[in-house]
Amino acid sequence: MGIMRIGKAELRVLDLEESVNYYTNIIGLEEVGRSAGRVYLKAWDEFDHHSLVLQEADSPGLDHFAFKVRNESDLEYYERKIEQFGCTLKRVSKGTRLAEGEAIRFTLPTGHQMELYHDIEHLGKKTGTLNPHPWPDEMKGIAPHRLDHVLLIGDDVKTVTRLFTEALEMFQSERIMTLDGEDMVGSFMHAQNGKAHDIAFIKGPDNKLHHAAFKVETWFDVLQAADRLARYDVPIEVTPTRHAMTRAETIYFFDPSGNRNEAYSGGYITYPDSPTITWTEDKIAHGIFYHRKEMIESFVNALT
Amino acid sequence: MGIMRIGKAELRVLDLEESVNYYTNIIGLEEVGRSAGRVYLKAWDEFDHHSLVLQEADSPGLDHFAFKVRNESDLEYYERKIEQFGCTLKRVSKGTRLAEGEAIRFTLPTGHQMELYHDIEHLGKKTGTLNPHPWPDEMKGIAPHRLDHVLLIGDDVKTVTRLFTEALEMFQSERIMTLDGEDMVGSFMHAQNGKAHDIAFIKGPDNKLHHAAFKVETWFDVLQAADRLARYDVPIEVTPTRHAMTRAETIYFFDPSGNRNEAYSGGYITYPDSPTITWTEDKIAHGIFYHRKEMIESFVNALT
Amino acid sequence: MGIMRIGKAELRVLDLEESVNYYTNIIGLEEVGRSAGRVYLKAWDEFDHHSLVLQEADSPGLDHFAFKVRNESDLEYYERKIEQFGCTLKRVSKGTRLAEGEAIRFTLPTGHQMELYHDIEHLGKKTGTLNPHPWPDEMKGIAPHRLDHVLLIGDDVKTVTRLFTEALEMFQSERIMTLDGEDMVGSFMHAQNGKAHDIAFIKGPDNKLHHAAFKVETWFDVLQAADRLARYDVPIEVTPTRHAMTRAETIYFFDPSGNRNEAYSGGYITYPDSPTITWTEDKIAHGIFYHRKEMIESFVNALT
Amino acid sequence: MGIMRIGKAELRVLDLEESVNYYTNIIGLEEVGRSAGRVYLKAWDEFDHHSLVLQEADSPGLDHFAFKVRNESDLEYYERKIEQFGCTLKRVSKGTRLAEGEAIRFTLPTGHQMELYHDIEHLGKKTGTLNPHPWPDEMKGIAPHRLDHVLLIGDDVKTVTRLFTEALEMFQSERIMTLDGEDMVGSFMHAQNGKAHDIAFIKGPDNKLHHAAFKVETWFDVLQAADRLARYDVPIEVTPTRHAMTRAETIYFFDPSGNRNEAYSGGYITYPDSPTITWTEDKIAHGIFYHRKEMIESFVNALT
Repeated sequence: MGIMRIGKAELRVLDLEESVNYYTNIIGLEEVGRSAGRVYLKAWDEFDHHSLVLQEADSPGLDHFAFKVRNESDLEYYERKIEQFGCTLKRVSKGTRLAEGEAIRFTLPTGHQMELYHDIEHLGKKTGTLNPHPWPDEMKGIAPHRLDHVLLIGDDVKTVTRLFTEALEMFQSERIMTLDGEDMVGSFMHAQNGKAHDIAFIKGPDNKLHHAAFKVETWFDVLQAADRLARYDVPIEVTPTRHAMTRAETIYFFDPSGNRNEAYSGGYITYPDSPTITWTEDKIAHGIFYHRKEMIESFVNALT
Repeated sequence: MGIMRIGKAELRVLDLEESVNYYTNIIGLEEVGRSAGRVYLKAWDEFDHHSLVLQEADSPGLDHFAFKVRNESDLEYYERKIEQFGCTLKRVSKGTRLAEGEAIRFTLPTGHQMELYHDIEHLGKKTGTLNPHPWPDEMKGIAPHRLDHVLLIGDDVKTVTRLFTEALEMFQSERIMTLDGEDMVGSFMHAQNGKAHDIAFIKGPDNKLHHAAFKVETWFDVLQAADRLARYDVPIEVTPTRHAMTRAETIYFFDPSGNRNEAYSGGYITYPDSPTITWTEDKIAHGIFYHRKEMIESFVNALT
Repeated sequence: MGIMRIGKAELRVLDLEESVNYYTNIIGLEEVGRSAGRVYLKAWDEFDHHSLVLQEADSPGLDHFAFKVRNESDLEYYERKIEQFGCTLKRVSKGTRLAEGEAIRFTLPTGHQMELYHDIEHLGKKTGTLNPHPWPDEMKGIAPHRLDHVLLIGDDVKTVTRLFTEALEMFQSERIMTLDGEDMVGSFMHAQNGKAHDIAFIKGPDNKLHHAAFKVETWFDVLQAADRLARYDVPIEVTPTRHAMTRAETIYFFDPSGNRNEAYSGGYITYPDSPTITWTEDKIAHGIFYHRKEMIESFVNALT
Repeated sequence: MGIMRIGKAELRVLDLEESVNYYTNIIGLEEVGRSAGRVYLKAWDEFDHHSLVLQEADSPGLDHFAFKVRNESDLEYYERKIEQFGCTLKRVSKGTRLAEGEAIRFTLPTGHQMELYHDIEHLGKKTGTLNPHPWPDEMKGIAPHRLDHVLLIGDDVKTVTRLFTEALEMFQSERIMTLDGEDMVGSFMHAQNGKAHDIAFIKGPDNKLHHAAFKVETWFDVLQAADRLARYDVPIEVTPTRHAMTRAETIYFFDPSGNRNEAYSGGYITYPDSPTITWTEDKIAHGIFYHRKEMIESFVNALT
């Protein structure tokens, strides 16, 4: 039993068709379904029905994100633990969204809406599971492997970290501490899945989205992604560089509604016994932009 | 609780110093200690004291391999399950090998010696855990990130797969079946860690090692590894290519005693709910050597 | 004045439509025109009207290859030098082939037909020459930058080398000598253009084609090319590896008529003062297949 | 006969030993000799004795740069053409600098000192010219292949371009024009060697150096270079990105004296018949920083 991964995120977008065009033709996700006001998308290398939901809305941002648990019965187990932790929680009934079963939805100490679910239709990959080719016949756009993680902004990073590591039994790969060691201002966490992070929090105004990240294969794909974004006039905020935090290669850019996206490659493997890396607040720029070593103003302020 | 990863392998080598030279200067592992007849090595990106042990012996091959469990108490839990499965098992006492605590050792249905352990000294990485650089100051040789997996040869692949998936609660990512679907002739399995495999079995004579694999970052590193091996006259059996099985990029070569090594990059991420990919026996060559699509004779026959 | 580069090759193919499908959809060249029994193709990164011509014929092989000279008047200059060298030569009149002007055609000491030309229509690249994007909007197939070189088989490598270096004033980057240093069995030559070779000869039966090579950007593109060929069942003869000769990364495969193709990246820059590298015949395998260090039988025998 | 390539640059540096340490240990050039106040360096993949000379001085900048001609007699030929163009010119006698023969030195319309030379000692590569390995045994630092080009600042870009294309018979690959098409504010030029540029000029104060560039193999090497610079606290001005101009991958950074360096990979091949690409002044940022599309202030103002 337990939590397996971030499985879905639902983004609010201003113009649904413009957003669908961006996420399918530029990012290269596949549209797999529609329901009232929502479009469902999956990456080519994911098995489940969808990992990204676009919801037409008046303002951009994150409606909610969701982690998949191993068994249906895990919902009850975590329901108890989350309520004991003190979060407000409700059941989301089957049929609320396309291809999804029942879920639990709760409010994080940082104000974000999170869900846990097990039941979702299985669509599979175009390559199939019998004598597969490594890649599908043709791919479009940046063609990421998967939704990789979300980075959220909120005030109480310490408490939301406790929720994830204690109630949800996840692991902290890296953290950013104030110089006096008293406060936690950044936290990167993952389920037991080898990833450097499924979710991260940085201190700031509550209930904000910093970015949703998609996994590409290598540094070469990061360049190809950047070239493609430049080709189609997508605003690139952070050009190709290295994160020292999570050791990944990265670019940041914006969807048509102003939600920040990341294309992300590399990073290390994690296990339950991997020690947590600590950053002191004065080294944040070194940690995030290893080559530049200077913070980028919009990177701090542009939140949705 | 549970099994986290393959943590160690102990190889029998003919000439200890020649082997240490190969594994440190060509492969680029670090020698971290010696005890009677044994040399202990770790990769730069591993936290634990060692992942590879070289044992001087009259014939090459695998002394044993070992998986690390999350807690000391897991040993007892799996001890019971392994005995129930019918394997002969004994305790290995602390102090038997350098830097290691107590372990359990048992014989697989394929004749191999396997251990489970939790207690091992933590050496850490040269980059440390406080405001780290992504890489250590200088690296040597191929400089893999970690011991990635071992592939073993044995007769009863079906039963050994049951041991791993039922008693050890691991997961099967891929399997090779005879055309009639009756017998399993290949099996790739992983702990809950996102890896495509920690261990694999291919049908053949019992208690044989096919290869021990080291993880490098990208296809580019596979080329640099191959160039380095060629430069220093290490025999390369399989030049750079793609596996369709596990979707990895790879080369195979031999250590001075004839034990096969692999340098491995790429591959997909796995979760407990990832479906098992099935290969039919007639597509083995397509699966292993995606570009060549023909089996290499030595690849079948050179076992230690 | 002088010779600039190999500019074109005309291949004999058995089934024209099957070949066009291969060279456009798999290799990713663009069809730019047709004339009686011929199809004209260009790579996306070439300016001239075409670089590859397919000619329907009863047997595969090379009809001729052609080098482009800087000025129309160079034709007369080289005409004299080639005749002085002793080659049979004739003028090819404008209109013989699509988009081409006058050329001179002569027979090499190895029996191959070679042409020199200056006049060819300029089609340009899709990216244009005003504020261009680095890449065209979409690319297809392997999408090489250019026809890079041809490797031909013939008996008198020494004499054909003299023709190229003396009469045609080109340069020899590498050569393969018998152990006694008496005979030349391999020769790599280039115009003054920085390339490791525009043309090469290996000793063997006269008037044979070994391969026509296309330039891709990097080792990563070589992998993607190999994956694509495997995906569409194109027979790959040599899987991704390093040449020590010319220091390139490479794969070899066959077009539907059995003409060998190469996808080639890397290699060093050459200048008129670059010393010629010498290989002794006993090191041919090391030179051609740096990782494998063993000759591949078909690589010697499959000629068209 | 003719000009082959940029062969050397002599930089003024403030602290000779600190600069030698930087250019040998971080950049990875080899120190090949010293004479009064000067240190001579070469890249591993160059044949000639040196390509970079460091001269201790009170201010940073470029003492001169030099192009190599094919024959000693070319000096006389170009001497005449340069004087006819109207440049002040003098002979530099053999023995002025280590390992160098006679040269001609003249002042460009932009105030820079340029030399032409043929005679320089041949040191060769560590790999030799007999059955070579592709790479030397061990390499240090960024380990570029060669000095690739210099970009200079000066007022009269149009006239200096005429000097290079008419008197020196070189070629212009790209140019930047004012919107009215009247003035040339940028010019990229190369000898007949396939390079995208050996030298470039951007309009600005006379006699200034913008940067000296070193060639690395691929985008992957650009990342490794950036990681290494970050690791050793070398200030990186421009993190890894794409140039649309010359289509290269690049980073910019500063030597200890404030001279800007570039590590450069990719780019296209050029020939004498390659059309010149034109940029309009309003697209400079798009051309130089394809991903960012915004100019960087220091990139305009930090000149030596």
